[in-house]
Amino acid sequence: MERVRTTDLAQHVGERVLVRGWLHRRRVLSQVTFLVVRDGWGTCQVVPAADASNVHEITPETVIELSGVAIAEARAPGGVEVREANVRVLSPAAAGLPLDLFRPLVDASLPTILDHAAIALRHPRRRAAFVLMDASVAAYRVALREQGFTEVFTPKIVATATESGANCFRLDYFGQPAYLAQSPQLYKQMLVGVFERVFEVGPVFRAEPHDTPRHLNEYVSLDAEMGFVDDHRDVMALLESAIGAMARAAEEHPAAGQAGAQLPIELPVPFPSLHFAEAQELLAAEFGADVRNEPDLAPAHERWLGDWAMRIHRSDALFVVGYPMTKRPFYTHPDPSRPGYSNGFDLLFRGVEIATGGQRLHRAEDYESAMRERHIEQAPFAGYLEAFRHGMPPHGGFAIGLERWVQQIVGASNLRETTLFPRDLSRLMP
Amino acid sequence: MERVRTTDLAQHVGERVLVRGWLHRRRVLSQVTFLVVRDGWGTCQVVPAADASNVHEITPETVIELSGVAIAEARAPGGVEVREANVRVLSPAAAGLPLDLFRPLVDASLPTILDHAAIALRHPRRRAAFVLMDASVAAYRVALREQGFTEVFTPKIVATATESGANCFRLDYFGQPAYLAQSPQLYKQMLVGVFERVFEVGPVFRAEPHDTPRHLNEYVSLDAEMGFVDDHRDVMALLESAIGAMARAAEEHPAAGQAGAQLPIELPVPFPSLHFAEAQELLAAEFGADVRNEPDLAPAHERWLGDWAMRIHRSDALFVVGYPMTKRPFYTHPDPSRPGYSNGFDLLFRGVEIATGGQRLHRAEDYESAMRERHIEQAPFAGYLEAFRHGMPPHGGFAIGLERWVQQIVGASNLRETTLFPRDLSRLMP
Repeated sequence: MERVRTTDLAQHVGERVLVRGWLHRRRVLSQVTFLVVRDGWGTCQVVPAADASNVHEITPETVIELSGVAIAEARAPGGVEVREANVRVLSPAAAGLPLDLFRPLVDASLPTILDHAAIALRHPRRRAAFVLMDASVAAYRVALREQGFTEVFTPKIVATATESGANCFRLDYFGQPAYLAQSPQLYKQMLVGVFERVFEVGPVFRAEPHDTPRHLNEYVSLDAEMGFVDDHRDVMALLESAIGAMARAAEEHPAAGQAGAQLPIELPVPFPSLHFAEAQELLAAEFGADVRNEPDLAPAHERWLGDWAMRIHRSDALFVVGYPMTKRPFYTHPDPSRPGYSNGFDLLFRGVEIATGGQRLHRAEDYESAMRERHIEQAPFAGYLEAFRHGMPPHGGFAIGLERWVQQIVGASNLRETTLFPRDLSRLMP
Repeated sequence: MERVRTTDLAQHVGERVLVRGWLHRRRVLSQVTFLVVRDGWGTCQVVPAADASNVHEITPETVIELSGVAIAEARAPGGVEVREANVRVLSPAAAGLPLDLFRPLVDASLPTILDHAAIALRHPRRRAAFVLMDASVAAYRVALREQGFTEVFTPKIVATATESGANCFRLDYFGQPAYLAQSPQLYKQMLVGVFERVFEVGPVFRAEPHDTPRHLNEYVSLDAEMGFVDDHRDVMALLESAIGAMARAAEEHPAAGQAGAQLPIELPVPFPSLHFAEAQELLAAEFGADVRNEPDLAPAHERWLGDWAMRIHRSDALFVVGYPMTKRPFYTHPDPSRPGYSNGFDLLFRGVEIATGGQRLHRAEDYESAMRERHIEQAPFAGYLEAFRHGMPPHGGFAIGLERWVQQIVGASNLRETTLFPRDLSRLMP
């Protein structure tokens, strides 16, 4: 007999079926005992056969195989239950789970959830968030491939910090100092000279000693870079299409409800956008926060702007464009019409920065003067600068923080909740 | 006017077109000058307008935009050329390329190619290998998704070496020692308890001081792990389907010829397989290499076995199954019928190991005794072992080396040729 997934039972009503999974829950009522069995995709309700006496001893999370008859049953979750089931134990489970998996919401502290990730991730609600993550990444790739992008894999061990060594993890590389890449920035730019349009999905590493609900020291970055742009607005249009595809994938996914996704996702196209200087005026006028001398926005300002975008534009997304050059890295292209401001942007989603991007410099001499101005030594960047000496088109790109995206979709209060095995100041395990 | 990609010109015959790209080559004949323009996808032949006097000064790799008329021309590569073209320089290129990009084969030493990767990768033949890499990875993901696998992202900074600390890069993590993950092995097993079927595409790091054409210190691993297997043979069937999908994607790709792919790829299903002990007998009988006391196969043995598989089975692939337990990691499941041998396998492709896999232990007590026997301390693995205490099904998985796969497809003699920016004992840049 072929094994049937719990999510496929409705196609087998009236048949004898074989189900495998974990004992998710046992409900003993006066007349009947129900089992809830969880497999890799969902759960199903099971009524054991009258002579299946072993079901009372089985501990939660025991791996079992059962055979029974799939019966349409309106009161069962999913509309089907498996009756007259015989149960066989495939693999035992010790008593004393670190947290209950059967409750609708995860009822445990964040440290407990993270310390016991291998168990806590089995909770259907936690699992569902990562199913949405998977769906989002798949949609991201499809959206970029459709537009002619090539997926690339660039090194994570690098000789030179992308921007500065301050926030880089350092390692010993056969006796030489090396760093973990903060971003694939320099590589994806070099590869614009090869493929014109590239994307990468991979880990990035930040040795920032932040201890906040919105920072981690390792995360997954969805990067893209494209050649032959007019300016940053072409990059923003690309990001809009990618975010739109990711939003549809999350919204339409069967796991959206289970994950607690906050729907609908409001994305009018084009996304509303504000110049950085306008955003500061708005913060002063509407929220009484006079930050007009600051070169950046604080998290509270981003939240206010997110509220404003929803109120005025009914949009979950808001571009803030033209961040001051002083706060952007050396490869940033200035705004030709507004000295001091850049062709760089952030994308706020529900009041949190989830992506950053912009147009980059593309002429060798512009790199040389930008690096001179910032006192950045050119020698370590020789292999990068060579690309610009030998012809690079106007180009730009962006990076989306994957875990932040999922965090905002499901409304998690801490980024650690949407990271399988988070890495922070004090957490290296599991 | 919309820009037309070089690979789309055939759809615009008779129209005025705008093409953007790099000046790949200039051919000055007595009657006419041809330009070859390269964009992110291909090249096209261009005949400049009679008054386009600037074309004689433009250096190779200059970024240009040209407008002209697309004309069917049987003698032009691709069957189309752009005539009466006016050329505008978008971005200049310095003279003195580190290697010629217009030659059919890359005519430079490997160190030159790698030192000047940003330029050398622009060579159509080098670029094409990475287009096949992209296509292979995309096909891998589709094959696994179709079979219910969820893509996951696990941490690359870890507290505990997967198997032993000897081959791990060590880093300082806010004052604590940490390592770069040698593989996602422990995480993907834990996640079998969550999703049953998971895959990951990501970097792995090996601090092995090898200086060979077939080893690198950072590479991309295509990992998968699945629950509810009968034994390793279910894992081998999964790997067969993944490799089959990757092979078809490479074989049918328009870039296969340009990349120098060695076709056809011969993959009879099921792939032929030999037990490790049989393989040793065969090496003794057919090749006169008596290695029957060795616990592993050397590269030369793998090549011989690859030749044998092609001769006898007309197959590029060969499974070697049942490697001795002594050479496999602690989580390896033994062969219940042949003590001392494992349910572990390698996949040879054209005589080179491109994947390794097997069935894993799944009972907590088996882990405890395996770790005791190997003198592995259990405390650092607490978060991992917890998964087995709380119910894990029989499971197994594999890991494919992506760069090795592409190397074998295109017949490159060195793994560095199929890695965008390789990392080896002496190479950290670019």
